[in-house]
Amino acid sequence: MRMYDIITKKRGGAALSEEEIRWMITGYTKGYIPDYQMSSFLMAVYFQGMTDEETAILTDAMAKSGEQLDLSGIPGVKVDKHSTGGVGDKTTLIVAPVVAACGCVVAKMSGRGLGHTGGTVDKLESIPGTRTSLSGEEFLDVVRRTGIAVTGQSPNLAPADKKLYALRDVTATVDSIPLIAASIMSKKLAAGSDCIVLDVKTGSGAFMKTPEDAVTLAEKMVAIGVHNGKRIAALITNMDIPLGYQIGNALEVEEAVRTLQGQGPADLTEVCLALAAQLLYLAGKGDLDYCRGLAQDALKSGAALEKLAAMIEAQGGDAECVRHPEKLGRAPFAMEVKAEKSGYVTKMDSAGIGIAAMLLGAGRETKESEIDPLAGIILSKKTGDSVKKGETLATLLTSDEAKLEAAKERFLEAVETGAKAPQKKPLIFARVTERGVE
Amino acid sequence: MRMYDIITKKRGGAALSEEEIRWMITGYTKGYIPDYQMSSFLMAVYFQGMTDEETAILTDAMAKSGEQLDLSGIPGVKVDKHSTGGVGDKTTLIVAPVVAACGCVVAKMSGRGLGHTGGTVDKLESIPGTRTSLSGEEFLDVVRRTGIAVTGQSPNLAPADKKLYALRDVTATVDSIPLIAASIMSKKLAAGSDCIVLDVKTGSGAFMKTPEDAVTLAEKMVAIGVHNGKRIAALITNMDIPLGYQIGNALEVEEAVRTLQGQGPADLTEVCLALAAQLLYLAGKGDLDYCRGLAQDALKSGAALEKLAAMIEAQGGDAECVRHPEKLGRAPFAMEVKAEKSGYVTKMDSAGIGIAAMLLGAGRETKESEIDPLAGIILSKKTGDSVKKGETLATLLTSDEAKLEAAKERFLEAVETGAKAPQKKPLIFARVTERGVE
Repeated sequence: MRMYDIITKKRGGAALSEEEIRWMITGYTKGYIPDYQMSSFLMAVYFQGMTDEETAILTDAMAKSGEQLDLSGIPGVKVDKHSTGGVGDKTTLIVAPVVAACGCVVAKMSGRGLGHTGGTVDKLESIPGTRTSLSGEEFLDVVRRTGIAVTGQSPNLAPADKKLYALRDVTATVDSIPLIAASIMSKKLAAGSDCIVLDVKTGSGAFMKTPEDAVTLAEKMVAIGVHNGKRIAALITNMDIPLGYQIGNALEVEEAVRTLQGQGPADLTEVCLALAAQLLYLAGKGDLDYCRGLAQDALKSGAALEKLAAMIEAQGGDAECVRHPEKLGRAPFAMEVKAEKSGYVTKMDSAGIGIAAMLLGAGRETKESEIDPLAGIILSKKTGDSVKKGETLATLLTSDEAKLEAAKERFLEAVETGAKAPQKKPLIFARVTERGVE
Repeated sequence: MRMYDIITKKRGGAALSEEEIRWMITGYTKGYIPDYQMSSFLMAVYFQGMTDEETAILTDAMAKSGEQLDLSGIPGVKVDKHSTGGVGDKTTLIVAPVVAACGCVVAKMSGRGLGHTGGTVDKLESIPGTRTSLSGEEFLDVVRRTGIAVTGQSPNLAPADKKLYALRDVTATVDSIPLIAASIMSKKLAAGSDCIVLDVKTGSGAFMKTPEDAVTLAEKMVAIGVHNGKRIAALITNMDIPLGYQIGNALEVEEAVRTLQGQGPADLTEVCLALAAQLLYLAGKGDLDYCRGLAQDALKSGAALEKLAAMIEAQGGDAECVRHPEKLGRAPFAMEVKAEKSGYVTKMDSAGIGIAAMLLGAGRETKESEIDPLAGIILSKKTGDSVKKGETLATLLTSDEAKLEAAKERFLEAVETGAKAPQKKPLIFARVTERGVE
């Protein structure tokens, strides 16, 4: 087999065989196929696409390129969740303990934040003592003891994806639906769960700008999962505005805990219940309505909150911070951003809000940036709210006073007010299952 | 400027600016831009193309990436010729001395053969003593003294093209019209002539399989030349069958000399007169008919033959071999290939014939292969000729008897006979000038 022929075949629009795909991924991971051939191939994929079957095989080959988590020794249905990334997206901190409280086993690997989007690992680390670099053995041990563990991604998980992603990142071949889908799903397959719920964000703060694009990506990921024997579904959710009212690491833990206590904001609670119900449904716990009831009960009874506390404790963290999130502390410097005129908030661009939070220290500009766990933004108003001139729109929080002004400026750029209330967009646009779009 | 942005721009189908193209070629030649970014860019060009202006700037940037021949100190109109490569294509050995005899200055750099196509440098080297690796100074000195020189390509001519071609060759990005045109023309621009005639071959033995594709390539090359201040035209000529009757290095020199003596085969003579007339026309020697007359006279008077002899002598070769080509000698082993049935030769695939000649030792399978200067094929019949069973179709010649059988087999695969004479195809399909296709 020759990489040259594989490039030529894809360039011409033909579908690759399973043998060709597996040969290529093995060869690339091992360094036998040079970057310059792979990048030419990736650009051909950008133009010619890949069939669902090709993408599913590619994903499986990438998943098998390194370590694979073996969860088969743990009894129960193993479930996983993935979000394509957003601003104020603390759903994992809520959905994972909810479904664990309902009897599913959660063994989840999460990422760190970059740019305007946050990462669950950073949020967990804002709870003092919490370890997020568990070894494989430690991870499985926490899962066995508490039924739930969330750790950083193992460095040897899907090495083919790491290598491919680094190459795509510098060769303008990132935004190809099959390649994005394969990248995300290769890590999900390697992580070994039986059921997967995907939260595909759409809107200004998301990678997929329109619901249509989000559906296309979701369909591809669901097809990959189904092809590889997973029970899987996706929700397409709104990321035109941040989710909930708090952005920043400790701030999001606090809001997640409040949501687990049944006192969370409506939008965040709704998305979390929908994701949890979907995951419980995939796990065979009942029909969707029944599963939603299970999830609501897990909030009401406090069982979900206790699951999170148990996980934090098992991972070395201070579980008291979960029961009493005020213990996480407040950033020493705060600035209130006031409305400059009266009317309605017509836009609160989540990408801009995410960047403002990053500028305060809540996120990373580059992979090497240090996180300020207490930094972030508390919104007082969101899109659609009426506002009077001089009223507080948001409070900016940081440990570094010098960062306030630039963040305020960026925040204000992201917000628009007008005389008329804007049209409300749905929170959940669609559900994508193996049966199609609902 | 960032290569990433240039790839993205081309991927989206936009035209690059002059600044971007020059920055990219300089950066790639100097090794600042890695192969993996360039190959991704090249694949984007394969899908999105380049405008005539982009291609012209790219070509100029490539031409200026290394040494450029300065012919300005030499009086007279400097002319050049390029063939896209064929089988039995010895036109340079005829056209160059013809136009030199008519007062043009020929300073031509030629290539070596690879695969089924031959190269002028190999043909010249079959004349004992002829040097084809002249230094820049030696080359200009021969041009000054005799008005004509043909040497191998200077190793520092258009290094950007060398680097790009090597990359395209392994990343399936060779067959892109703008990239092919820029590659050829960058060397022509760097070689410094005023007028250029292109012989774009089409048919089974050529890179461009159809006259339409050949016209497209020719148009692109003519546009590049015009944009860069050259007088330039292209002829689209037939390469479904070999040109002339002799294939192989010494064998082609012999046939070229016979043509220069006015006794060449009709097809070869016609293509050479058309190319020479076109070049003389571009050089301002008169209208096309007048220029054809000049070229014919140069054959008739023996002036063209004497030009070739003078050049060979100036390059250290045995000019007597030009005046008496039988001195080149004959290969020791010969095999006649006989017709297996009576009828008409309906096909004589030039790619196949070229490969048979290569197998006899006339060409190179890889860049490192040694050439047998006396090896080759003398055709007795060509497409359209009637043939009787047992009649000789061709004579295979080689210095290595062991090579005869495989070559014969390959030769016979390339030849078809049938009951009906095939339809005759034109020898010259079209002329492409800056005014369009004629």
